[in-house]
Amino acid sequence: MLAVGLMSGTSLDGVDAALVEISGVSENTTVTLKKFITVPFTAAQKARIQKELANATSSVEGLCSLDFALGEAFGRAVLAVCREAGIASTALAFVASHGQTLYHLPVAPAGEARSTMQLGNAAVITEITHTTVVSDFRSRDLAAGGQGAPIVPYSEYVLYRSAAHPRILQNIGGIGNATVIKQNARLEDLFAFDTGPGNMVIDELCRHFFHEEYDAGGKHAAAGHVNQAVLHALLKHPYFAKQPPKTTGRELFGKQYTASLLKQYALAPNDWLATATALTAQSIIAAVRPFAPAGTQLIVGGGGSYNPTLLKMMQAAAPTMEVLTQEELGMRSDAKEAIAMTILGNQTLHHLPSNVPSATGASRPVILGSVTYYD
Amino acid sequence: MLAVGLMSGTSLDGVDAALVEISGVSENTTVTLKKFITVPFTAAQKARIQKELANATSSVEGLCSLDFALGEAFGRAVLAVCREAGIASTALAFVASHGQTLYHLPVAPAGEARSTMQLGNAAVITEITHTTVVSDFRSRDLAAGGQGAPIVPYSEYVLYRSAAHPRILQNIGGIGNATVIKQNARLEDLFAFDTGPGNMVIDELCRHFFHEEYDAGGKHAAAGHVNQAVLHALLKHPYFAKQPPKTTGRELFGKQYTASLLKQYALAPNDWLATATALTAQSIIAAVRPFAPAGTQLIVGGGGSYNPTLLKMMQAAAPTMEVLTQEELGMRSDAKEAIAMTILGNQTLHHLPSNVPSATGASRPVILGSVTYYD
Repeated sequence: MLAVGLMSGTSLDGVDAALVEISGVSENTTVTLKKFITVPFTAAQKARIQKELANATSSVEGLCSLDFALGEAFGRAVLAVCREAGIASTALAFVASHGQTLYHLPVAPAGEARSTMQLGNAAVITEITHTTVVSDFRSRDLAAGGQGAPIVPYSEYVLYRSAAHPRILQNIGGIGNATVIKQNARLEDLFAFDTGPGNMVIDELCRHFFHEEYDAGGKHAAAGHVNQAVLHALLKHPYFAKQPPKTTGRELFGKQYTASLLKQYALAPNDWLATATALTAQSIIAAVRPFAPAGTQLIVGGGGSYNPTLLKMMQAAAPTMEVLTQEELGMRSDAKEAIAMTILGNQTLHHLPSNVPSATGASRPVILGSVTYYD
Repeated sequence: MLAVGLMSGTSLDGVDAALVEISGVSENTTVTLKKFITVPFTAAQKARIQKELANATSSVEGLCSLDFALGEAFGRAVLAVCREAGIASTALAFVASHGQTLYHLPVAPAGEARSTMQLGNAAVITEITHTTVVSDFRSRDLAAGGQGAPIVPYSEYVLYRSAAHPRILQNIGGIGNATVIKQNARLEDLFAFDTGPGNMVIDELCRHFFHEEYDAGGKHAAAGHVNQAVLHALLKHPYFAKQPPKTTGRELFGKQYTASLLKQYALAPNDWLATATALTAQSIIAAVRPFAPAGTQLIVGGGGSYNPTLLKMMQAAAPTMEVLTQEELGMRSDAKEAIAMTILGNQTLHHLPSNVPSATGASRPVILGSVTYYD
């Protein structure tokens, strides 16, 4: 059946609308993306949301009104993606809407309740699209003791779980993060941890040597040589020896870490980039290797997936794994969250859970979202 | 099946919880009240709601938090009414929650959207009660072009529609208001209009002559004599000759009207009360008579239903009708709105509409509310 997933992120860029063909439930869900659009917010819409995001400028009238105004924007985004696909919105089985997060209090200050607020009134979307709407996916997990976040792991489980391959989703942002989905995984088998530096050290060195924000296309690293002695020393960082679960951030591999490396070792700029890129590649591979039987697909996403030098180094370090980007697997990074909503909404309509307690901290699996029936 | 209806009114008194046995749908719904409680708000809860009701003191964090805090209060009210009835909340088929209205903008000022906001997060109620919750009943009617109010006419239709009797619900507040529900009525047959003065003239005369707010038990009217000449003159007021639909208020029968009567006619105080009470009684009966075939039950609610002199005069003026109070029919005025929620929630779970377009102005019947499934 056809469905539209809606996502409106905290960047306030606009409304992502993914039209998908979806069938089955839970492990047997199959989803195919038919059309994806982003409807940008106007400057006025963005200003209005920003006003209501802040305690000092928000008001009950403003939030009441914004809830319905966003519902209308979301409804129109559904009509737009349907129009581009040449179908009527009445051909949809459902719309699944994340809503615009106005506030998120998973840990409450004194006197307040643990709570979350996503606006974009479902009844308005229902009325505009003539379609049943599933919405408010975070509240139930929060009510069940979870953080109400992250919201996408269930969809990652559904989309990437494979009977043919063990898979590891390796996101490479500032920090590297791996989600391990073993062959024929059950939901409770999923686990995630930070592998160590992603682009953080590479970016810092680029800024230091070249006044560039990042090593575009991995060109500096490709022009240099890895200093094996330095690499060997860097891989001795105690974080790499820790067993998962483990998380890290700027406090271990940030600006100060790179500054101290530059004091300890004197390398040519491109050699530094090659060595730091090798550090990211080898620390990732070393971290995931214990969970990567032969034939594992290591699926890279995030900024690091646009660095071919990094990808080559990862593949070289992992001869028994297949290093792939999300795009090589037929996925689209930009549509990922909107697609995820359709998987969650489909679960809800079948009275099935879609939170991942091991990821959110909820006491148990619960059905996420509320259903507003068109007919 | 068992269900709990929750209502939390604008008076901020507390949470009304009605445990009912409900079966059937639409015209064939039957509802029996099993237990009714009101859980008063604490001073702190009331203060918190009042803070978020006002534009000057409300904030996005406060409203986010209040939504979940009220959800918890509502969930606990469900547990309380179940405990008093000696059942587990898991024995409930559903909970239907109106929510606390924080804002209602059926006509929007410039730059704002027509909208409404009822708080009391459904996922929290679901999680506390382990029961499916239906909530947010006003949004859809509003999205369909209606005012999102009134919300109870559908339940009046279900509760009072009779195959045995034509019925007229006569509310007697300051103004009299009649809802006509003919024998075997269809929903679209319902109509309502103002009959004229209710207690307004009686109360004004009581204040003038006795410094009393109202004629308690109809004792002054019972001690006087109706002046037929004056009554005859008063019944010539042009409002009574108008055909429904018609509405009136203080502008026709308020303080100024009573003051002008006192200048025109000189009667003893108790005779004035008797004559004004006869005016209310006879104007009501004359107004409803065209819609009241023999055997009509005229069911009186509101403050006027506690005035036996008025009820006797109404019965005397309407020998072909049966004048009854809601309590004589086995209904409870105080539980009426909470019971109404269970009727609306039951419709929603059966994917059936429960707005009354002729009352709200909506473009058509629509399914009200959203469903948050426990399992």
